[in-house]
Amino acid sequence: MAQWSQVQQLEQRFLEQVDQFYDDTFPMEVRHQLASWIESQDWDAASNSDSLATILLQNLMIQIEDQLNRVSQEKNLLLRHNLKRIKQLLLGKYHGNPMHMAMIVSNCLREERRILAAASMPMQVCAEYLCTLIYFIYSICKM
Amino acid sequence: MAQWSQVQQLEQRFLEQVDQFYDDTFPMEVRHQLASWIESQDWDAASNSDSLATILLQNLMIQIEDQLNRVSQEKNLLLRHNLKRIKQLLLGKYHGNPMHMAMIVSNCLREERRILAAASMPMQVCAEYLCTLIYFIYSICKM
Repeated sequence: MAQWSQVQQLEQRFLEQVDQFYDDTFPMEVRHQLASWIESQDWDAASNSDSLATILLQNLMIQIEDQLNRVSQEKNLLLRHNLKRIKQLLLGKYHGNPMHMAMIVSNCLREERRILAAASMPMQVCAEYLCTLIYFIYSICKM
Repeated sequence: MAQWSQVQQLEQRFLEQVDQFYDDTFPMEVRHQLASWIESQDWDAASNSDSLATILLQNLMIQIEDQLNRVSQEKNLLLRHNLKRIKQLLLGKYHGNPMHMAMIVSNCLREERRILAAASMPMQVCAEYLCTLIYFIYSICKM
């Protein structure tokens, strides 16, 4: 399952953590609307390469513009309004420093993975404990 | 039809005008999510009465909280995130001056009505012209 789909399935206490790192530096609306495209780009590499980051920022604007055309045809006024606002916001913030945007997106994706790993931890521990218990019972029975 | 439903049916050139007066002073998300409740309150009166404006701000917070509970149960992460952000934003902006919020909401609703009236104008003119034409033809035929 794609990362963003997994994030949306998290329990409330983990979602509170996700809430914390999405704001106007990288709005959750764009993470949500362009989830699979965002996950398929190399933001780590772009955060160390100005030319790559510039291309990614340009491509992000194209992706948002495509979504804008789609939602305008669907007469989705709210989403159109939000996407227009986000496009202006991101251009204003990162036009002169696209590597900074790449670093922020990269951090958000990394934080999501960290939270997903933490959320699956108790289940793993439980499964391991169960295996140990079954093996223990099996060993006793064999005696 | 409720005002917000009519606004959403407007042509692109009128929607551009609506876009202009929705920003963080009164986010479109809250206008959209609480459309009928917002339209049923007396924002004009509240913009001249501190006690009424205080009650409206409190009630708006309760409405947002109700929506938050609903979307949390539905696991709508994005909407929950947006509504939490808007709740904090509006409280931070208007807690000390609820009459200012009432004035802004009142203005937004008035602007929407002005745009809706402007959008329906050509249709009215056309209908009136058609009536005159039919009456003119009818008068000739009667001669």
